[in-house]
Amino acid sequence: MTVDRVRIYEVGPRDGLQHESLPISTDDKVEFVKRLAAAGLREIETTSFVSARAIPQLADADELLPRVLSGQATGVRHPVLVPNLRGFERAKAAGATALAVFTAATDAFTRRNIGMTVAESLAAFRPVLAEAAALGWWRRAYVSTAFGCPFSGCVPAAKAVDVAVALLDLGAEEVCYGDTIGVGVPSQVDALVEASLARAIAPDRIAFHFHDTRGTGLANVTAGLRAGIRGFDASTGGTGGCPYAPGASGNLATEDLVYLLDGLGYEHGVSLAGVLDAARFIAGVLGRPLATKVGQAGGWDPDSGEATARP
Amino acid sequence: MTVDRVRIYEVGPRDGLQHESLPISTDDKVEFVKRLAAAGLREIETTSFVSARAIPQLADADELLPRVLSGQATGVRHPVLVPNLRGFERAKAAGATALAVFTAATDAFTRRNIGMTVAESLAAFRPVLAEAAALGWWRRAYVSTAFGCPFSGCVPAAKAVDVAVALLDLGAEEVCYGDTIGVGVPSQVDALVEASLARAIAPDRIAFHFHDTRGTGLANVTAGLRAGIRGFDASTGGTGGCPYAPGASGNLATEDLVYLLDGLGYEHGVSLAGVLDAARFIAGVLGRPLATKVGQAGGWDPDSGEATARP
Repeated sequence: MTVDRVRIYEVGPRDGLQHESLPISTDDKVEFVKRLAAAGLREIETTSFVSARAIPQLADADELLPRVLSGQATGVRHPVLVPNLRGFERAKAAGATALAVFTAATDAFTRRNIGMTVAESLAAFRPVLAEAAALGWWRRAYVSTAFGCPFSGCVPAAKAVDVAVALLDLGAEEVCYGDTIGVGVPSQVDALVEASLARAIAPDRIAFHFHDTRGTGLANVTAGLRAGIRGFDASTGGTGGCPYAPGASGNLATEDLVYLLDGLGYEHGVSLAGVLDAARFIAGVLGRPLATKVGQAGGWDPDSGEATARP
Repeated sequence: MTVDRVRIYEVGPRDGLQHESLPISTDDKVEFVKRLAAAGLREIETTSFVSARAIPQLADADELLPRVLSGQATGVRHPVLVPNLRGFERAKAAGATALAVFTAATDAFTRRNIGMTVAESLAAFRPVLAEAAALGWWRRAYVSTAFGCPFSGCVPAAKAVDVAVALLDLGAEEVCYGDTIGVGVPSQVDALVEASLARAIAPDRIAFHFHDTRGTGLANVTAGLRAGIRGFDASTGGTGGCPYAPGASGNLATEDLVYLLDGLGYEHGVSLAGVLDAARFIAGVLGRPLATKVGQAGGWDPDSGEATARP
């Protein structure tokens, strides 16, 4: 049997924490990232070089990233979100060698979220992706609202794929389709993969960022797997709620994703017990209980039938 | 386009409430069932004729069922759980015309749960199913622990299918494979369907009862749909926790299932707003907030992009 390997791209430290209002110390962030790496995660989006005014929680990026990189485990990639050339210069000064840029499939969303149209965002990323490519950095690009937009409704797959193609043309190595408000269903995953392949995007350049806001997170992952996709985002402890549905969950939890992949027999290199350790740590920092499914139920030992890694 | 119709089998009033320790009045149960029917649910497992000692919460079955049946909406089926001939006689006296019997794929589970082996439970059901068939009742049989057993671990699909075949041979019209402890993954759904078809069980005689304990509920539904199954259990408000993982969720929530089916374009006749109304009612009775995904986030209007039926 050949090994079928899945990449788990951890977004907890950046996407998960960015909207938390409780101040989180740089020490705690460093420790969180350390535990994520100890759990076996090898791609950890660590922080964001947006303006401190826009995202106060990540204002310590210039201090955080060097600390994380100086103590990093071998072979761990630490992408950082970079909105523009100014952010790129800061990221470079902090030692970054991997970045992500963020736009969306719909103008209605980017106008409100980053203050420009999709086309304007692409223009802003052109020099950023070119500079990063010249330095040999790893480069990812998000296509947010790829399933649905809170301001303009359902998004046809072709519209998201148009943006993905543009981002790859600008030099991104990977595009990540985001279900930003957690409305996506498996048939949309199929449609996005099909439309991407029709535009000659290779499956290994596609990742998905699912939310579990309406319980479809793992259903969408399963659809992605069956369509040949092997890159999925997740957030340890399920951090990162849905700003458009207060109190509801947002990011798919890493522990839930690991449970599914273990059950399906995919290799991924991540320890469920390690993820739950990191999840408990960040839950303690945030002062609230773990709300993820596997965080509450634990894993399962198919030999004995007993729950494992219970809280 | 042909209409592809899915049956949603509501288990909230019976399976959802049976382990609640807070006393629930018969009036509240009648009202709950009434709201479920008003939401468009057409199969509502209403109560259980087990001994009052075993399940005190459902001790009012003899009073509840006639009240439900006297006020029922047209075309609604109200199956009741019947463990033995004594329970059958009580159900008959109360006006039942549809029943469900409950066994499992593993002796380790049935011994602890119903005090007999699987074979002994089948022997006990033989006269019950025969009597019910003679009266023209609708007859369902549960095969619990079809994915995993808390006492003996992973369950091979063939073992669960053996029990299903035996139950159909005894006169059950439908078998329902239960993921009793919420450990199942989509590859197991595929295996169960494949093994069932290999034993000549028709797809329309198969239903699935998924739990969302580890977040795989809708992933498993999607796998079932793709394998041609059109019958799924769910519990409005997500009532019915997992007795083997205190604090964790059990039954897949009806509102989450309806959201998925709407998104995938299946016909099912159930109103999401109606289900959320019934869910809010029972949450109020139980005195706790709705913990389901869609109960927290609401539905979604793909035209406007706005959340709908928010709490």
